[in-house]
Amino acid sequence: MTQQSIGAYLRHGQTPFFRLPAVMDEGTRPTAYANADVVLLGVPFDGGTTYQPGARFGPYHVRRVSALVQPYHATHRIDVFAALRVIDGGNLPVPPFSLAAMRELVQAEVGAIVDAGAAPFLVGGDHSLTLPSLRALAAKHGPLAIVHIDAHFDTSSPELWGEAFHHGTPLRNAIEEGLVVRDGLFQIGIRGPWKADDDAACSTRSGARIVTSDDLEAHGTATVANEIRDRFATLPVYVTLDIDAVDPAFAPGTGTPVPGGLSSRELLRLLRGLAGLRIVGMDLVEIAPALDHADITCLLGAYALFEGLALRACAPR
Amino acid sequence: MTQQSIGAYLRHGQTPFFRLPAVMDEGTRPTAYANADVVLLGVPFDGGTTYQPGARFGPYHVRRVSALVQPYHATHRIDVFAALRVIDGGNLPVPPFSLAAMRELVQAEVGAIVDAGAAPFLVGGDHSLTLPSLRALAAKHGPLAIVHIDAHFDTSSPELWGEAFHHGTPLRNAIEEGLVVRDGLFQIGIRGPWKADDDAACSTRSGARIVTSDDLEAHGTATVANEIRDRFATLPVYVTLDIDAVDPAFAPGTGTPVPGGLSSRELLRLLRGLAGLRIVGMDLVEIAPALDHADITCLLGAYALFEGLALRACAPR
Amino acid sequence: MTQQSIGAYLRHGQTPFFRLPAVMDEGTRPTAYANADVVLLGVPFDGGTTYQPGARFGPYHVRRVSALVQPYHATHRIDVFAALRVIDGGNLPVPPFSLAAMRELVQAEVGAIVDAGAAPFLVGGDHSLTLPSLRALAAKHGPLAIVHIDAHFDTSSPELWGEAFHHGTPLRNAIEEGLVVRDGLFQIGIRGPWKADDDAACSTRSGARIVTSDDLEAHGTATVANEIRDRFATLPVYVTLDIDAVDPAFAPGTGTPVPGGLSSRELLRLLRGLAGLRIVGMDLVEIAPALDHADITCLLGAYALFEGLALRACAPR
Amino acid sequence: MTQQSIGAYLRHGQTPFFRLPAVMDEGTRPTAYANADVVLLGVPFDGGTTYQPGARFGPYHVRRVSALVQPYHATHRIDVFAALRVIDGGNLPVPPFSLAAMRELVQAEVGAIVDAGAAPFLVGGDHSLTLPSLRALAAKHGPLAIVHIDAHFDTSSPELWGEAFHHGTPLRNAIEEGLVVRDGLFQIGIRGPWKADDDAACSTRSGARIVTSDDLEAHGTATVANEIRDRFATLPVYVTLDIDAVDPAFAPGTGTPVPGGLSSRELLRLLRGLAGLRIVGMDLVEIAPALDHADITCLLGAYALFEGLALRACAPR
Amino acid sequence: MTQQSIGAYLRHGQTPFFRLPAVMDEGTRPTAYANADVVLLGVPFDGGTTYQPGARFGPYHVRRVSALVQPYHATHRIDVFAALRVIDGGNLPVPPFSLAAMRELVQAEVGAIVDAGAAPFLVGGDHSLTLPSLRALAAKHGPLAIVHIDAHFDTSSPELWGEAFHHGTPLRNAIEEGLVVRDGLFQIGIRGPWKADDDAACSTRSGARIVTSDDLEAHGTATVANEIRDRFATLPVYVTLDIDAVDPAFAPGTGTPVPGGLSSRELLRLLRGLAGLRIVGMDLVEIAPALDHADITCLLGAYALFEGLALRACAPR
Amino acid sequence: MTQQSIGAYLRHGQTPFFRLPAVMDEGTRPTAYANADVVLLGVPFDGGTTYQPGARFGPYHVRRVSALVQPYHATHRIDVFAALRVIDGGNLPVPPFSLAAMRELVQAEVGAIVDAGAAPFLVGGDHSLTLPSLRALAAKHGPLAIVHIDAHFDTSSPELWGEAFHHGTPLRNAIEEGLVVRDGLFQIGIRGPWKADDDAACSTRSGARIVTSDDLEAHGTATVANEIRDRFATLPVYVTLDIDAVDPAFAPGTGTPVPGGLSSRELLRLLRGLAGLRIVGMDLVEIAPALDHADITCLLGAYALFEGLALRACAPR
Repeated sequence: MTQQSIGAYLRHGQTPFFRLPAVMDEGTRPTAYANADVVLLGVPFDGGTTYQPGARFGPYHVRRVSALVQPYHATHRIDVFAALRVIDGGNLPVPPFSLAAMRELVQAEVGAIVDAGAAPFLVGGDHSLTLPSLRALAAKHGPLAIVHIDAHFDTSSPELWGEAFHHGTPLRNAIEEGLVVRDGLFQIGIRGPWKADDDAACSTRSGARIVTSDDLEAHGTATVANEIRDRFATLPVYVTLDIDAVDPAFAPGTGTPVPGGLSSRELLRLLRGLAGLRIVGMDLVEIAPALDHADITCLLGAYALFEGLALRACAPR
Repeated sequence: MTQQSIGAYLRHGQTPFFRLPAVMDEGTRPTAYANADVVLLGVPFDGGTTYQPGARFGPYHVRRVSALVQPYHATHRIDVFAALRVIDGGNLPVPPFSLAAMRELVQAEVGAIVDAGAAPFLVGGDHSLTLPSLRALAAKHGPLAIVHIDAHFDTSSPELWGEAFHHGTPLRNAIEEGLVVRDGLFQIGIRGPWKADDDAACSTRSGARIVTSDDLEAHGTATVANEIRDRFATLPVYVTLDIDAVDPAFAPGTGTPVPGGLSSRELLRLLRGLAGLRIVGMDLVEIAPALDHADITCLLGAYALFEGLALRACAPR
Repeated sequence: MTQQSIGAYLRHGQTPFFRLPAVMDEGTRPTAYANADVVLLGVPFDGGTTYQPGARFGPYHVRRVSALVQPYHATHRIDVFAALRVIDGGNLPVPPFSLAAMRELVQAEVGAIVDAGAAPFLVGGDHSLTLPSLRALAAKHGPLAIVHIDAHFDTSSPELWGEAFHHGTPLRNAIEEGLVVRDGLFQIGIRGPWKADDDAACSTRSGARIVTSDDLEAHGTATVANEIRDRFATLPVYVTLDIDAVDPAFAPGTGTPVPGGLSSRELLRLLRGLAGLRIVGMDLVEIAPALDHADITCLLGAYALFEGLALRACAPR
Repeated sequence: MTQQSIGAYLRHGQTPFFRLPAVMDEGTRPTAYANADVVLLGVPFDGGTTYQPGARFGPYHVRRVSALVQPYHATHRIDVFAALRVIDGGNLPVPPFSLAAMRELVQAEVGAIVDAGAAPFLVGGDHSLTLPSLRALAAKHGPLAIVHIDAHFDTSSPELWGEAFHHGTPLRNAIEEGLVVRDGLFQIGIRGPWKADDDAACSTRSGARIVTSDDLEAHGTATVANEIRDRFATLPVYVTLDIDAVDPAFAPGTGTPVPGGLSSRELLRLLRGLAGLRIVGMDLVEIAPALDHADITCLLGAYALFEGLALRACAPR
Repeated sequence: MTQQSIGAYLRHGQTPFFRLPAVMDEGTRPTAYANADVVLLGVPFDGGTTYQPGARFGPYHVRRVSALVQPYHATHRIDVFAALRVIDGGNLPVPPFSLAAMRELVQAEVGAIVDAGAAPFLVGGDHSLTLPSLRALAAKHGPLAIVHIDAHFDTSSPELWGEAFHHGTPLRNAIEEGLVVRDGLFQIGIRGPWKADDDAACSTRSGARIVTSDDLEAHGTATVANEIRDRFATLPVYVTLDIDAVDPAFAPGTGTPVPGGLSSRELLRLLRGLAGLRIVGMDLVEIAPALDHADITCLLGAYALFEGLALRACAPR
Repeated sequence: MTQQSIGAYLRHGQTPFFRLPAVMDEGTRPTAYANADVVLLGVPFDGGTTYQPGARFGPYHVRRVSALVQPYHATHRIDVFAALRVIDGGNLPVPPFSLAAMRELVQAEVGAIVDAGAAPFLVGGDHSLTLPSLRALAAKHGPLAIVHIDAHFDTSSPELWGEAFHHGTPLRNAIEEGLVVRDGLFQIGIRGPWKADDDAACSTRSGARIVTSDDLEAHGTATVANEIRDRFATLPVYVTLDIDAVDPAFAPGTGTPVPGGLSSRELLRLLRGLAGLRIVGMDLVEIAPALDHADITCLLGAYALFEGLALRACAPR
């Protein structure tokens, strides 16, 4: 269940994630999941976006450019697609109009993946998909430790639109629903002015550790990565990566960019530094290809996703 | 209630539609509506989009570039903003997540405009705003004649997503709700392959006249415009303009482009040819600025909107 | 062997041409060809380009946007994918460095398609793929009639680089090799200054009919289409469509743009006007996605390809 | 004094207009002018721009893409660069800050060209260069007939900024200074709303013939071209081409775009239709490369310039 | 005099800086200034540009995207718009043709702001606006300390065009006019090759401290910020920020980009490090939106402006 | 043989590298080479590209923007174009179709430059030009030390396409042909997943020192530069710079971008740190202007090339 050769990829002219086997038939899905260590799943939904939409096309374009990624991780010294059975589970067909329907569909599909013994790696889509993903995972593993890489806390309250579940709320939702283990939230990349002086309150009340973009540069990614590994050493860990954690120079293709973010090197190195953790799932969200240039955001997303897969490949079983 | 001078516009640094007076205070809204012939209203909502979103930013960018438009219509020989009291009513603050909430808000606001004796000119946003606009207008005027300029019939049934009201359904909705007068639908610009052989059935059953993009070129815009004027001579007329009626070369900034469309000259001339009709309202929808280049789609939208206002200025009272 | 539903398409997250079945396994290729009326084949090769390259990515992006195309042709009144068994044969894996290797591979694969009783529809890639395609088809059908839609004659001699076979030579090659029936070349869209006064000589010596872009507007597409149908009524016909026939406004994504070209409406109508001809193959070449904006060139290519398929569906058997 | 071969062009890696000989040394300038029929001169100045600037880079980019243009005019049946000695006179080094300095420099240089017996073909830069060009030419030829292709009248009065000479005023200036022969102004492409009902007054008082963009489509370019040839048969004719005459779809790279303009085919055909007139000079203005896409505006400019040169080659001596 | 809520902002559909109150009526201007701590003023002028123009649109687009910025500064622990009465004074209507007129208008308006007791925060426009701003401020405060963040010294002499006042000269002008206190110039971000070995002479003669882009990385922003605070502890300080100080990756939308510049994080942190200084005014210049991508330059400008406002909010009174 | 003044540059309107004298006549080429210290040579060839092509336009656009670069190096305290006689040798006219022909032409021309006593500085074009350049230089100097700045090893074997010489193979070719001195390869910027665990084998077998992008950040550019200077102190050194060494944020205009690369500051500083080495030649490759934005990649390339020239100016003779 490894990558196609470049030749085979060119021949098929299709673009499954990383040139991997793809589930093309509903009937074979249960078997495919059961035989997989990781299922990559696109969630082409941006109905939870409050500012610039377009992330619904993230799965298509991250998938397309991921064909460039080779299998061998030079730092971890492992062939990720040899070590790990990874499949492209396709996209979840989500109605573009309904946050509630999306949540149900994501939770059910992630549930199926988890029940089959595989780890879900989701490609959004906007950040509202994280809540149902966590729900399904927590149902299996209990409360999780979360590595949350983002420019924003994502703990908004429903005040603006009277809507409690959108792309600005997943961490609040998860905390309030008990899906996060106590002191189990680690937020990296946070920056920018706040709405009010209590913007961090929801996070800090939960015992979260907050590392701003400036903190990361000041301490270095290695130090931060080590701290995460120490904290979460024995826990099931979920990584949720909002691409706007990265500076708009490196990731212009996103809907709510904030200047002053991580460099691409910091992002990749941070992820690389988490080797040894028990990664039970990951999501990559908020890539809006229409705002990208020369695919640089999509490429960064694909390489970051590969780092996540490599973590899973290195994880203790 | 005419345009600001260019100097005043430069001074304020703001961008109300066509440099017009803008309602900046909720309290003055009723009076402002009552004193207006036309209220321009932005509806920054694209939650009804099935393919590429982004039309929610249409009102901001059409408003911005509309500052370029001068007031005197050289064909109709009329100073539109002298002849007509037009105001910028601002945008409707619509939750991005809820089609139902959008419909309620649009219907209520258009109702307020109509009740105040003014005509609503809406700038979307996606095409799902047309239904509540028609509902409010029909409540006042009875069933309407509709000039529908679009690449698509917009009479989709809810089969795909189980949702009966989105940007592909407003004409079906309007017909089924009795908002369109019998034989009162005129669809121009239709083209492209159909889903099935009965795609036009909903339209034709209602007595609609369908003029494809090729038909328009073959017959000439003058002939088509004359036919519309004959048909709708005594009726209250609503113009709904989906910018994708125009060819992607002239309007790349839209979410569902279809090659083979109208030229910008045809669109403007067609609108110009409708002088004499009793225009009770208009909308301009589906401009997605993130997909535009050098503002050409937004500019075309602003000039088309001006043609609509000129029709109103020429209309019999 | 019809299109996937939109739902299935969304689910698989892959992008075969027009949501059609795709050959994903070399072993099933012979059977798949034998059961097909038409095989769509990508040729991601631009090694024959003399100016701006990039057409090698044409197959990927035309395939991607073709998912938007619906199956029912409203003018011909036919469901193309119900009437015709069309499959996506994937891409030909061509070394990017070698014109000679490309020619061998294309000729062999088109030969296999033709031998299986199907018609090849190629998506380039640059125009140098047309020669081997014609070679394989002429081996089966004898000399062909050719509808050549292009801004250029493509009858260059090897003087500049000492290379007799590149993207500016296929029509000269085909004529010299006897692949074109006498008086069997129809060139539409030609325009722009010539290198010398004998640029048309190769074409005219072969009895070609040349319709410039201005001629097409002057005579109308219907007249030109009728003339082609009369001329080629009983002949096996190959359509080779270089997207630069179209004006850069409608098709900026091409390597050798020439102002003053066809509109998208003219292109689509011209193709539509050829119904009744016996189409034995088609190619669509010179789409360079990196130069495109908002996919408008790729979309036009996909719709033109659909018109070609519809011609095949309407063709006498 | 013909074009370089493509090979020589590639070798030098430089980009003189149309691969022509370029004056690279101030000392040889007088001789070069004296031996030339036409001098191409760039005027990289946009200090007269009222809206979006950037036309100062027009000469660089039109020059660059003009390397694509071949020498033989297929309609007029003439090798333009064999029939006419054309040289690239380089750019005029104009201070970017001063309209007055630009006027002096342009008038002096055009004067030198005219005195040497050559015709000036200027590439702007913004439209304010036309006045000094006309001044120098009228000093030689007396009042001129002017073919003015533009979306705007360019007869603004100084009211807005208290400045009588900018890119919106050259035709008013020329008329008032007596540089235009009575009834000698022909304006094509005019469109869009006016500032007031007397926007055309300056033109009409001078006896100008105004052909709007719609008129041009209605009458056909041949009819309009014939009318110009009849009117100006015996007069010295100057062509001033503001690229915004063309629709933004065909020429997005300009500072004051107006929807509803000419197609590229109409522009080129109109110019082609003027063969036989005695062309004494031409300018091409208002190309702003930073707003262009895939060079389509610059290419159209280069091909239009070639049409102008061909007119000169066909002109009675 | 705080920000509008997001809801009110959406309703008005207008874009005053940071959703702040805007002066929309000349008559209320004096009162508005008198009640303000800071007046934001757009100066849409780029007539002093020597290379790529376009900065005249800076105020419109920085204003537009500044709506995203929230009020609470998380590092300084202060709600900037609660602590400080900030208003949007609109744009100064400057003739685009005249550097002299621009200087007079800016000096007068900044003078009015200063006289009313408020601090001017200008958004250009090109760098030539800094001189008249400094003139007005020095008239009030005496010679100033200047934090000059830029890739260039901006101390050009008039040799090239014979013009002593343009966007490359403001610091020379200010030094020569005695507007800068001795040793009161601090230049950060300088880089790139020089015209000659004495490019820094004007700066060094004035006692300036020069910190190149490499120096900043080597020493760290904290060290540099501390040095500035020590030097200028008791002085009235003006911050002039040319966005080209930042690397083109982070700020492509500028007319004279130089590779090797600051990161966005360094810029924002540097500004943040200046808390405690007595900021009497600021300008943000050289943002050219037509060269930007996905608004990333405009966004960085808006956030940098916010940092400047926060400094003012933290400043000793 | 120094730069033109800006005025002269504006006058000629041409764009030789860095406003330098250009060889415009084949006959003067030998003399020009003999009088030069450095010959800049464009190689507009991308026929060795395996992924996105377009680098053939690199020489045109790097040349164009290099006009911005000033002559005085502020760190090395040297006027590069006064210290060094540098000329623009134009472009090599290479057939776009043939890797073999390119290799012959480059080797012959570099040979002629070397024989004339000058150093070749090549601007590609893709990386396949490095092999023939090294062949010609090694023929003169013997095996070379190579500073290879790149995201990739460029030691691919011919397995994929059966082609031993393309843009992914030059370092393998050079090692195998004995053009590199033992332990004489220094590779900086390497990153990204590998094809297999032995991707570095070819490099390491040759004694190469590999500094990944992360290593460079960890050790600092000064340390790495010092190590190179120590290693190569007495050797003839060739610098080959693949722009994809730099992160896509700083250099989007390249065909095989890999996230996580160098910053522009690191690249320029690394080159600057090599002063003292005996540079015998350099190439700058893989800039694909069609993928660039606002010229930022081309500008970075031009400034990096200037750093290389400055190294030559500082080199021991």
